[in-house]
Amino acid sequence: MKKDLGPMPAVCPMPVLIVSAYDGDGRINLMNAAWGMICQTDKIALFIDEDHKTTQNILLSKAFTVGLADRKSIVPADYVGMASGNKVSDKYARTGFHAVRSEHVNAPIIDELPVTMECELAEVVKTDSMYAIVGRIVNVCAEEGIIGDDGKIDISKTDLLMFDQFRWSYNVLGDRAGKACSVGKALM
Amino acid sequence: MKKDLGPMPAVCPMPVLIVSAYDGDGRINLMNAAWGMICQTDKIALFIDEDHKTTQNILLSKAFTVGLADRKSIVPADYVGMASGNKVSDKYARTGFHAVRSEHVNAPIIDELPVTMECELAEVVKTDSMYAIVGRIVNVCAEEGIIGDDGKIDISKTDLLMFDQFRWSYNVLGDRAGKACSVGKALM
Repeated sequence: MKKDLGPMPAVCPMPVLIVSAYDGDGRINLMNAAWGMICQTDKIALFIDEDHKTTQNILLSKAFTVGLADRKSIVPADYVGMASGNKVSDKYARTGFHAVRSEHVNAPIIDELPVTMECELAEVVKTDSMYAIVGRIVNVCAEEGIIGDDGKIDISKTDLLMFDQFRWSYNVLGDRAGKACSVGKALM
Repeated sequence: MKKDLGPMPAVCPMPVLIVSAYDGDGRINLMNAAWGMICQTDKIALFIDEDHKTTQNILLSKAFTVGLADRKSIVPADYVGMASGNKVSDKYARTGFHAVRSEHVNAPIIDELPVTMECELAEVVKTDSMYAIVGRIVNVCAEEGIIGDDGKIDISKTDLLMFDQFRWSYNVLGDRAGKACSVGKALM
């Protein structure tokens, strides 16, 4: 039996994206965003409010990075989702994160995060249905230790987080259930 | 040490969304989409190609549903990501799924999926960076058995899938790692 729950943002899982950018003085700000997704093979759309400090920084610097949060960074990852860079001037310092400047775009890479997309601002899409910061993914960098022998990122070697918006919780990712474009061949 | 991997769609986890709609004759078609996300509290954006049979059906019927795939539906969920409704006329029948018409929108609900967003077509966003089908979420329905005593969906009572685009695999979701807007209070 199905039960009606009314309208709600019921996509699950959502990623735990840490979006970082420089302000006009080269200071780092960063935020936690769950509402972001690939919108073209080399592009990512972030549905984040225009008034965020990070959004304003991206509009100014024309670049940002998006890191994937893992279990060991859960405390600062959650913190940057609560504290506002418009109100807390030392938000980045409080995280304990260490950042280095990307060699590809004008934005900081958080060293503690295992996977980071380095993005140039491609477009700001503003319609009745969305405000989206769209970045062109110029490069992805990852911790060497989570790259498999085939050169691909192996998520079993890390503890990436997901966001559960039903209960506002973070979970880790679980076991592999099957290969895509493979298990379904039984019905082809 | 970080390693550069070049541009790639590195959001992880991605959801496993089963998008369903009627064609002009009331026949069901459905597809598997990973590139979809909430773009406003009551809206979902699907980054799916315009030439998909499901996309064409949505443009015609002005409605669709988005179900979350779980482990028990992994075979049909993967199948509908491989087979094209433009080529296979009995795609829905082959899945073994059972659909009922939504009471809220002109679209079918797949009974086997534990959570479904019922959507009216709100907007088609077409820019250099994206082609997005945006739906207004009119209602969410869920299996009674996965709703907790607090009336909220409890993902620990189901086996939702996620998509790992690095290795084209499905994983289940793992254990809870912490409460959002809570564990980060240590740094406030």
